[in-house]
Amino acid sequence: MRKRNLLLLSNSTQHGAGYLEWAAQHIKEFLSKRGVSNLLFIPYALSDHDHYTEVAEKAFKKLGISVCGIHTLPNPVSAIMDAEAVMIGGGNTFRLLSKLYANKLIEPLRKRVLQEGVPYIGSSAGTNVSTMSICTTNDMPIVYPPSFDALQLVPFNINPHYIDPSPDTKHMGESRQDRIRQYHEEDQTYPVLGLREGCLLLVEGSTATIAGDSGAKLFRKDCEPVECPAGDVSYLLTDA
Amino acid sequence: MRKRNLLLLSNSTQHGAGYLEWAAQHIKEFLSKRGVSNLLFIPYALSDHDHYTEVAEKAFKKLGISVCGIHTLPNPVSAIMDAEAVMIGGGNTFRLLSKLYANKLIEPLRKRVLQEGVPYIGSSAGTNVSTMSICTTNDMPIVYPPSFDALQLVPFNINPHYIDPSPDTKHMGESRQDRIRQYHEEDQTYPVLGLREGCLLLVEGSTATIAGDSGAKLFRKDCEPVECPAGDVSYLLTDA
Ligand SMILES: [Ca+2]
Ligand SMILES: [Ca+2]
Repeated sequence: MRKRNLLLLSNSTQHGAGYLEWAAQHIKEFLSKRGVSNLLFIPYALSDHDHYTEVAEKAFKKLGISVCGIHTLPNPVSAIMDAEAVMIGGGNTFRLLSKLYANKLIEPLRKRVLQEGVPYIGSSAGTNVSTMSICTTNDMPIVYPPSFDALQLVPFNINPHYIDPSPDTKHMGESRQDRIRQYHEEDQTYPVLGLREGCLLLVEGSTATIAGDSGAKLFRKDCEPVECPAGDVSYLLTDA
Repeated sequence: MRKRNLLLLSNSTQHGAGYLEWAAQHIKEFLSKRGVSNLLFIPYALSDHDHYTEVAEKAFKKLGISVCGIHTLPNPVSAIMDAEAVMIGGGNTFRLLSKLYANKLIEPLRKRVLQEGVPYIGSSAGTNVSTMSICTTNDMPIVYPPSFDALQLVPFNINPHYIDPSPDTKHMGESRQDRIRQYHEEDQTYPVLGLREGCLLLVEGSTATIAGDSGAKLFRKDCEPVECPAGDVSYLLTDA
């Protein structure tokens, strides 16, 4: 059985609140339950790694957790192998995944999280890369990664910052739902869990739970989308 | 000197109007000026090629132009070589570019448009693929293309459906401007012309003109964005 412990956030910042503030209780509980006091932070999704790590440091300090930026360590693979827990922050998913590949971190991360149970927190782009592929990111493809395959810590895809179609808009770009439907028109796709802002997915071994106020929406190929309010969604882990 | 004749639309459909209706006069003038009566339509950006081609057929019929879907012809490369004019419709940019590569159409299209002056109309995804790269598309990366390099008919990138930051939104995903700024943080990028819906770019040889009511916004690395109202923007073709 998978040993994984994942806390996957839709978003880092909630309107009107500070970095990770909306999810602070969930994060605190997730880490303290597992005796974590030091977090390895992966700031690759934004260009300024130092500044991004400082922001994370400040947020985690309030929870009694110390933070180390992976970019400050001489060997990123060793950093993963030694980490007590890992957090990958949001930003641009293409940039993030490219850097994970460039630094050869995909396999080490998979091994540590799936076989050794190292706690993993992802937010936004950090949530995207925890899934099967980045094919359902909202980000702009600013760099070309060697593959869209991601860490595959869960057997489905996530769309973070999921937003319902707006009946009022006069803008003619596709709705998020349209985009996910187009994804499912392709061959070899995965179910997509649309996590609204303020929503998170907790995965512990073979148990998955949605928490937060806003809920999620599940999209499957050739099926009507289904609302997933807070609660158990462990079926997502088995029948992908 | 480049022989190119390009009509690059931000969007196919304007709120409350039919397919290509908002740009009908521009399209009609662009094609009739060049004596075009038959258009090769490339419907690769949507999954249902027949239906998409029918929609295009209907819209162009009103302008006295007949349409042939490239997917109905036995050899897509020959179809390009024989085309009087080409239109690439909108949909998903990754799917479109993947299919252009799969059918080996990149070089034939470049040759026909840049060396032989075959008129090219692009809309949305069809506009994205006419530029240097698809790195500034808004679409979801639903399939992995062999490269993000596009047809490179102009020496810059375009962001179609460009939309200004909304001060009212509570949604925390990046604004379009944020996304383009993140693109410019990367190495080897191009200027980005954000075409608002209802805006188009006409390129004739080394002359470029913005038309339509809504205007464009030009983003360059390390510069403040600049408004581009309707009018001449030929400088975009030389100093990229
Ligand atoms: Ca993002
Ligand atoms: Ca599109």
